[in-house]
Amino acid sequence: MTAPPTAARAATRAPETLARCRALVRPALTEAVGRLHPWTAEMAAYTFGWCEVGGAPATAPGGKGVRQALAVLGAEAAGADGRAGVPAAVAVELVHAFSLLHDDIMDGDATRRRRPAVWKAYGTGPAVLAGDALFALAVDVLATAPQGPGALRLLSAALADLVRGQAEDLLFTARPRTGPRRVTPEEYRTMAEGKTGALLGCAAALGAALGGAPEAAVTALDRAGRHLGVAFQLVDDVLGLWGDPDVTGKPVGGDLREGKKTFPVLVALGSPAARDLSALLGSPGHIEEAAELIDRAGGRAAALAGARAHTAAARALLADAPLAAGAADELRRLLDHLVDREL
Amino acid sequence: MTAPPTAARAATRAPETLARCRALVRPALTEAVGRLHPWTAEMAAYTFGWCEVGGAPATAPGGKGVRQALAVLGAEAAGADGRAGVPAAVAVELVHAFSLLHDDIMDGDATRRRRPAVWKAYGTGPAVLAGDALFALAVDVLATAPQGPGALRLLSAALADLVRGQAEDLLFTARPRTGPRRVTPEEYRTMAEGKTGALLGCAAALGAALGGAPEAAVTALDRAGRHLGVAFQLVDDVLGLWGDPDVTGKPVGGDLREGKKTFPVLVALGSPAARDLSALLGSPGHIEEAAELIDRAGGRAAALAGARAHTAAARALLADAPLAAGAADELRRLLDHLVDREL
Repeated sequence: MTAPPTAARAATRAPETLARCRALVRPALTEAVGRLHPWTAEMAAYTFGWCEVGGAPATAPGGKGVRQALAVLGAEAAGADGRAGVPAAVAVELVHAFSLLHDDIMDGDATRRRRPAVWKAYGTGPAVLAGDALFALAVDVLATAPQGPGALRLLSAALADLVRGQAEDLLFTARPRTGPRRVTPEEYRTMAEGKTGALLGCAAALGAALGGAPEAAVTALDRAGRHLGVAFQLVDDVLGLWGDPDVTGKPVGGDLREGKKTFPVLVALGSPAARDLSALLGSPGHIEEAAELIDRAGGRAAALAGARAHTAAARALLADAPLAAGAADELRRLLDHLVDREL
Repeated sequence: MTAPPTAARAATRAPETLARCRALVRPALTEAVGRLHPWTAEMAAYTFGWCEVGGAPATAPGGKGVRQALAVLGAEAAGADGRAGVPAAVAVELVHAFSLLHDDIMDGDATRRRRPAVWKAYGTGPAVLAGDALFALAVDVLATAPQGPGALRLLSAALADLVRGQAEDLLFTARPRTGPRRVTPEEYRTMAEGKTGALLGCAAALGAALGGAPEAAVTALDRAGRHLGVAFQLVDDVLGLWGDPDVTGKPVGGDLREGKKTFPVLVALGSPAARDLSALLGSPGHIEEAAELIDRAGGRAAALAGARAHTAAARALLADAPLAAGAADELRRLLDHLVDREL
């Protein structure tokens, strides 16, 4: 796939941007994974949807590739060729794959993208190992890229935030629904920024840094990506409760059944409806009632308002930063594509 | 603890070197661990022997600190103050702790240094998370150190080799004892270089790089550390089969009972005694007989000869490299201390 000329690209729709960046990054990502031990390489390829268990080729869904697109667009926003951002794109996709692999173990999630999670397909020990291999490979890709070591701090800070966000998320499940030790919506927002936002921000910032962007642009893209991550998580929470299962691919109320303390739930648990809601959540078979109560208590509205505010903050950062116009426009369209599903 | 003057240090015995380096590194290691989320920080502190489950202070054995000593001595061998190597020391100790945490999960080892392994004490998911947090912290420590990013490739290459070695080790268990698919002693040596040698080499090389050593010294220390790792593993295999349990802290023949394909076993399985040995290993209650047969088949002698050869190779590298005399002497004493237990 060849990139269309810049003028045409200014009006490129987000799915085309995503496809263009995936095509640009794929050879380098394939090459990097090929450097792994064959066993961990197969688990990595399975994660990316490139093969079945055993190694037979497959074309299973491997994710939209939002992070790699942000890295490529980050480099282009710095005025560089998108190829300058490819090592950043490979590194963040590897980190993302690592985090999905390990998170599925920690959360006990047996399914990922409609296939068995790696720990289900290959075993827990091998899945731990494959995640470690992807993590190490991500660092190695950056270490061997031109300008890569100088941008190391962007990746290491994101990794630290990512793991901290996952720790907070895991601990939320054990906290009570009501009372002084309950999880606040603000704590949830911080968790989402770490768990989802840090790597999105890192992707764009790392791509920009490899493209030679000034410090101000790198910082603005990092912050914009973090806002995008929070907005994305809040929209995801709304879809998980009230979305069309045919579109989301997830059962309605699945998050509630699993007892997940998502943002709308936490808002409602901080409202006068808290006691009634807590009782409903504690007894199975009341998913629809609970979702309705959360809506009436303002959980849905607060989540959407929060998503809108974080999207606006990301847009403002993009507007004020010194970025190349075409890539900045593609970044904005990508932002809208990712969060406007319900806004 | 204050470092004795250089003249006196030239004759320093290895246990004193280890204690001096632990004391030098400890504040920075404590500070780094303190930057983690409190939950992962507690699991890290438990791993280092600083606390019990729940956080109560403890002084459990936390390992000799060989890797941190190599990093400090690497910096000193470059003619720098040992403090220049502290970020390298912290990074490699964090990586070592990460690998122990995850390896214990993969190997199902319930005990580590006479205490429950982290996954036994805190659960598998939290132990995966704590390992990830230590890994990310190691990269971050290097990213924020002066000269750190420039030495990134040394760490990332070691990480890749470490994970590859662990993959090979895990796959060895499933391979047959005899026939064309059996594990060869040479494959075992490669595995040990990755799993044990890569980080030892990285420790000394990274310390030297942060101390401003020339490329030749960095490379020599890296290669010497890798030889040391193989020698150490071979001696460990001998002690696991024929060592005094009061000294090793491990039951005699424990490795055999667990079906581990250690170097002496693999040598014997490649000898005419293979069929008899395979039968003995397949039936419980014949541990002593098996150990005797391995000895008669040359497994012990071959392991000791290999350990001697790798130690000699490490010594030759240290002798030929441009290193400061005092630190090089301490490195040699440390080498002897680690591998001369049976040589």
